[in-house]
Amino acid sequence: MLSAARRLLPHVSRVVQHSSVRQEHSLKEVVSAFRSVCGEDGVSTGESVRQQHGKDESVHRCRPPDVVVFPRCVEEVSALAKICNRHNLPIIPFGTGTGLEGGVGALKGGVCFSLRKMDKVLDVHQEDFDVTVEPGVTRKALNSYLRDTGLWFPVDPGADASLCGMAATSASGTNAVHYGTMRENVLNLEVVLADGTIVHTAGKGRRPRKSVAGYNLTNLFVGSEGTLGIITKATLRLYGIPEAVVSAVCSFPSVQAAVDSTVHILQAGVPIARIEFLDDVMIDACNKFSSLSYPVMPTLFLEFHGTENSLNEQVRTTEEITSANGGADFQWALDEETRARLWKARHDAWYAGLALRPGCKAYATDVCVPLSRLPNIIVETKEDLIQNRLTGPIAGHVGDGNFHCLMVLDPDDSDEVQRVHLFTERLARRALALEGTCTGEHGVGLGKRALLREEMGPGAMGVMQSLKETLDPRNLMNPGKVL
Amino acid sequence: MLSAARRLLPHVSRVVQHSSVRQEHSLKEVVSAFRSVCGEDGVSTGESVRQQHGKDESVHRCRPPDVVVFPRCVEEVSALAKICNRHNLPIIPFGTGTGLEGGVGALKGGVCFSLRKMDKVLDVHQEDFDVTVEPGVTRKALNSYLRDTGLWFPVDPGADASLCGMAATSASGTNAVHYGTMRENVLNLEVVLADGTIVHTAGKGRRPRKSVAGYNLTNLFVGSEGTLGIITKATLRLYGIPEAVVSAVCSFPSVQAAVDSTVHILQAGVPIARIEFLDDVMIDACNKFSSLSYPVMPTLFLEFHGTENSLNEQVRTTEEITSANGGADFQWALDEETRARLWKARHDAWYAGLALRPGCKAYATDVCVPLSRLPNIIVETKEDLIQNRLTGPIAGHVGDGNFHCLMVLDPDDSDEVQRVHLFTERLARRALALEGTCTGEHGVGLGKRALLREEMGPGAMGVMQSLKETLDPRNLMNPGKVL
Repeated sequence: MLSAARRLLPHVSRVVQHSSVRQEHSLKEVVSAFRSVCGEDGVSTGESVRQQHGKDESVHRCRPPDVVVFPRCVEEVSALAKICNRHNLPIIPFGTGTGLEGGVGALKGGVCFSLRKMDKVLDVHQEDFDVTVEPGVTRKALNSYLRDTGLWFPVDPGADASLCGMAATSASGTNAVHYGTMRENVLNLEVVLADGTIVHTAGKGRRPRKSVAGYNLTNLFVGSEGTLGIITKATLRLYGIPEAVVSAVCSFPSVQAAVDSTVHILQAGVPIARIEFLDDVMIDACNKFSSLSYPVMPTLFLEFHGTENSLNEQVRTTEEITSANGGADFQWALDEETRARLWKARHDAWYAGLALRPGCKAYATDVCVPLSRLPNIIVETKEDLIQNRLTGPIAGHVGDGNFHCLMVLDPDDSDEVQRVHLFTERLARRALALEGTCTGEHGVGLGKRALLREEMGPGAMGVMQSLKETLDPRNLMNPGKVL
Repeated sequence: MLSAARRLLPHVSRVVQHSSVRQEHSLKEVVSAFRSVCGEDGVSTGESVRQQHGKDESVHRCRPPDVVVFPRCVEEVSALAKICNRHNLPIIPFGTGTGLEGGVGALKGGVCFSLRKMDKVLDVHQEDFDVTVEPGVTRKALNSYLRDTGLWFPVDPGADASLCGMAATSASGTNAVHYGTMRENVLNLEVVLADGTIVHTAGKGRRPRKSVAGYNLTNLFVGSEGTLGIITKATLRLYGIPEAVVSAVCSFPSVQAAVDSTVHILQAGVPIARIEFLDDVMIDACNKFSSLSYPVMPTLFLEFHGTENSLNEQVRTTEEITSANGGADFQWALDEETRARLWKARHDAWYAGLALRPGCKAYATDVCVPLSRLPNIIVETKEDLIQNRLTGPIAGHVGDGNFHCLMVLDPDDSDEVQRVHLFTERLARRALALEGTCTGEHGVGLGKRALLREEMGPGAMGVMQSLKETLDPRNLMNPGKVL
């Protein structure tokens, strides 16, 4: 208790400055107040628990919170937030810690709200294609729960993230080209504000597929990265599981040919479910890591969802287009096992990249540009990597114009660390110069706050800042992130 | 000039109360300041112009503004807004006046910003599937402009509304079940705030298909009904024109059978482009008005977009489903002319309803519920209409759970007017009781402000109110609407 008290002390002294009536509050009281809300085992100040909750999967260093709380229901979240608000303690929501931009680091100490105990799937409405989940439910847990309903939730960022964490970061991933991102798939959110107020962004329990009732609060909180409130419940759209699925791999003579194929496929109205680009370096890494033998060339991984008959047509059209653009013959993954192996290879790209340089760390950058700008930016970026002696295989959700460089670096080589840092800034600015964004799906978090200002300009930044101040006037919600 | 001055006087006197340095400003100066910004013919205080800009297509009575301005560019919009801000004058953005909830009435007088002179299509990026338009461009004008590109913009609320007006009201309509509403189809907005600040919601000139850079400002302004800012430019998603289109009509023994068919069609993954419900009263009205001869029964109008081959399959699956639910044989509209006649009949439903009682006025209500709740609410609503001796044919975008009663009433019959008023409140409350919304697409405007409070509850309403106060602290933007 005492060591926790010491760690919390700076914040308490800040409170003292602001509120003399709070002076008598000792830290013991704060932690004890937390315990009175969510039980003895609902509060931890243990070193290892704090360490676990101070970092995500990025290279940002661990910034442990002072204390971790494990609320069991929204009322507890609200009561805990009220205590934090009273004591001026930062609040950092925590789902699974699978983010990539340092979003969960406790920059100013404070209280991590781990939502893993709230893990119930609350309502599945099969006829209405919707479900409501608590914040600890992950996407794989939901899809496993839904297995017998014929429905699924398709947004798939790779990691088995929590669905409310995915809402908080507006996650997307490989299926977004067809099914949209979290922005298009959240119908309602329950959110706890910094002062403990419970808000239902579309009204409590409401789940119409369409609404224009007042301001779109749902999409204000989707993607707010924990800086406006704690998401404690989400109502999501579901989709019918496709009758049939086929996947294929196709290699191309150039990046341009792969991207042109993508544009033509979309123009032809093929409702492609996944269309993933891997550059030569990445496919080489995947070949080695996943024991595959694809040609070491710019490559598309494709997936088609539909009926048997519609798949035949989708595939035929796609083959004609890729062939006209100089693509090689499709390599098929028709059965589920081969398909699973293919997509596992894609999702293992991270580890494949890491295996290129054993002992190194990986850092995934993320930009998004209009489709037509993709060939230029990828070619320029590959030249930049070579010039600066950097390892950065490229993979991306090419149907959305979104791609990542997986930077593999030696964290002890300060020169290389600096070169990676400068490279990622150049990449982001290249995207900005091409009418794109510095982040298509990883978020702003800690690392892209300066780039966000460049991207948005003073008008939009002013609005964002004023929204933050309105909803979180004391800057308690995940401080130091996004803005 | 003088009469305009007199009309503007109340607002100036309000200014005088708040700001003594403004006392010397005469009204002449305000109008003359407007003229110095957008020219002699860019400002009108004429009675007929003001009347034209004081109402939409609803039954809400005309509330003319004191003056109408016709800016030619965003800089003029900004300069005019600054003048309004200085003089505490309400600002009411005006597109085409085709709204249905009284959104453009100048409740507190003030200045109508007609955006019709800003009518250029600015950039079409064929490979990127996007376009940027000025606020005076209507959806039909855009689609006519796009004709040779193979692309189109599918959101279709029926009226030939301006696209920025459609963004401001988050319009949707018959195609939304497949292509989404304005929420899913706006990539970026240029907005002028009440103080004249120009904001680009996704950063100036940016148009990535996906972004998580900061808060989603775009969707904060989409659907804000002119209460947060004036939309002066929109970047929109485009789609490839489908290779083939077929439409069909099918009648059902009951509302339940029609809705069950809809759910099964969606569950089967048929990518249906339009699925519109018309009740027996509405189909009867359409038959009479548009010289058709469909059975007077609950009816679905359907449309399929795709390739020839995929259409065959979509249609076959749909026919199996409707037949299993007791639907009659499809009546086909294969050629473009028959199809156009069919959808014209659907879009003329308003006039068809009106023709049921010559000399009467129409008022279209709008609610949206989860799909499974549709049969109940429609059956109950039809009983309510009969009990209360009201004429209210029903039509709806059944794939989204969204439907309208087209109330046909004698505006001089105060008893009937009152019965309609009470009926529409009961209908909205029925939707709220079924986890739905009081408005799926028409908006809150003037008529549904009290219902919005019931729907959202104090938490969400508090957030909406605080956002409004943050972005428009003096309540100048379209005052008296939404909140």
